Amino acid sequence: MGTVIPLWEPPSLPVSGSADRFPVRRIYCVGRNYAAHAREMGADPDREPPFFFTKPADALVQDGEPMPYPPQTAELHHEIELVVAIGHGGRTIPEAAALDHVFGYGVGLDMTRRDLQQAAKAKGRPWDMAKGFDRSAPIGSLAPAATSGHPDTAAIRLRVNGAVRQEGDIADMIWSVPETIAHLSGLVDLAPGDLIMTGTPEGVAGVLPGDLMEGEVAGVGTIRTPVAPR
Amino acid sequence: MGTVIPLWEPPSLPVSGSADRFPVRRIYCVGRNYAAHAREMGADPDREPPFFFTKPADALVQDGEPMPYPPQTAELHHEIELVVAIGHGGRTIPEAAALDHVFGYGVGLDMTRRDLQQAAKAKGRPWDMAKGFDRSAPIGSLAPAATSGHPDTAAIRLRVNGAVRQEGDIADMIWSVPETIAHLSGLVDLAPGDLIMTGTPEGVAGVLPGDLMEGEVAGVGTIRTPVAPR
Repeated sequence: MGTVIPLWEPPSLPVSGSADRFPVRRIYCVGRNYAAHAREMGADPDREPPFFFTKPADALVQDGEPMPYPPQTAELHHEIELVVAIGHGGRTIPEAAALDHVFGYGVGLDMTRRDLQQAAKAKGRPWDMAKGFDRSAPIGSLAPAATSGHPDTAAIRLRVNGAVRQEGDIADMIWSVPETIAHLSGLVDLAPGDLIMTGTPEGVAGVLPGDLMEGEVAGVGTIRTPVAPR
Repeated sequence: MGTVIPLWEPPSLPVSGSADRFPVRRIYCVGRNYAAHAREMGADPDREPPFFFTKPADALVQDGEPMPYPPQTAELHHEIELVVAIGHGGRTIPEAAALDHVFGYGVGLDMTRRDLQQAAKAKGRPWDMAKGFDRSAPIGSLAPAATSGHPDTAAIRLRVNGAVRQEGDIADMIWSVPETIAHLSGLVDLAPGDLIMTGTPEGVAGVLPGDLMEGEVAGVGTIRTPVAPR
C-alpha cells in the first residue's frame, strides 16, 4: 500500500533481562483503587464495580526520559501505579484464569491535569483531556511473570526530589489484578499489547518543571521521570 | 529488536480516488457540537470552549464491515459525524492556519453505549467505556482536501434500514473545523494520522442487531455499517 502521510510505529516498552520489546496497543486505567486515595479525592470507597479510563498508546514516556510540563494546567499531579501488561487477549475472562493473560508487570505514572479533571467531574464531562494528554504515561521496563511471578503484595512508593510523596502496598488495592482483568474484559476485549494501570495510593500532589519523580514497586521495577525545566 | 508478543499494525483508512491508505494514530471527538443535539441531551448549548473525548485508534471499523452489538449495554446509539483527518501536526494552531493541517474529510459514526454514558455523567466519571469501546468508530474513506476542498456547508444524514434518523447541515456546527482544531491543538499536540470526529446533529437513537446504518455528508463521503445479527 502507499501511504499519504508517514506510517507511525506503535510505541513499545523494554522487557527486563532481555533485548526484547513489548509493543503497546492501548492503555487502560482503573479509577480510585486504593481506599485512602478515594477518600482524598472526596469519594467514598465502595464495592461498586471498578471504573476505567484510557490514555492513547503514544502517551508513553520511556524510563529516564523527561516529560514536558503540559499546557493548560496549573496542577500537574503524580500518581504512581502498578502496571499490568496483557500478553494473551480475551473477553469476559474469569478471575480464576486472569493471570494466564498477563505477560508481566511494570511501574508507571498516571500523570494527571488535576484542575482539568476536577472541572470535568463537576460538569459530568469526559476526563480524556485531564488523563489522556500527550506524554502522560511514563512507564518503566516490564518484568515478565514467567520469570518474576505475579506480585500480590509489594511496597509501592514515589519520591519527588528525594522526598517520599506516596507510599503504600499493592495488597491494599480495592480491586485485585484478577478482579480488574475480569471486570475490564467484560467491557472491552483485551488484546496482546494492552496495558492496565491499576490505580494509585494516597499522597497525590503537584510537580513543577525541574522536579524529578522516582517510583518503584518493590521486586517489580522502577520509573524515573524528570519534569522538563521550563 | 525482538518482540515478546506479535507486533500490531496501526489501522488505516482508504483514500478516495487512490490506492493509498491513511494510517490512523488517535481519534478525538467533539462533544455536543450541534445546538439541537445538545438540547436533546439535556444540555444548554453555549459558547464555552468545546470539550473533547477519545476512542482508541483500533476502534476503527472499515466501510461496509459489520460492527458487533457491544456487551453491557441495552442502548447502542448512532451518531453520524463529519470526520477531519490531520495530515500535518502542530500545537496551538491558530484558526486562520488550521485548514493547512487537514489532509481530508470523511464520514463516521461515533457509536455510543448511551446507558453507560448517562451513568458516567451522573457520577462525574469518565466516558471512556461509553465512547471508546471496541469497534465503536466506523469511518468511511477519506476525500483529500487537495482535490475535494474544505466543506463548510453540506447536508449530513443517517438512515437506519432506509429511514432517515438524523439530518442536518455541517454549517450548523457550533464550533467550525478551524475553531475545533485551534482549541484541540491547545490541549494536545496534533500529529499526522489524528482524526477528529466533529459532533452529531439531533436525532440520535438506538440500533439493534441486524440493523443497517447508512450515513453521508453530501460531497464528502459515505459510511455503511451493518450491526451484526445476534
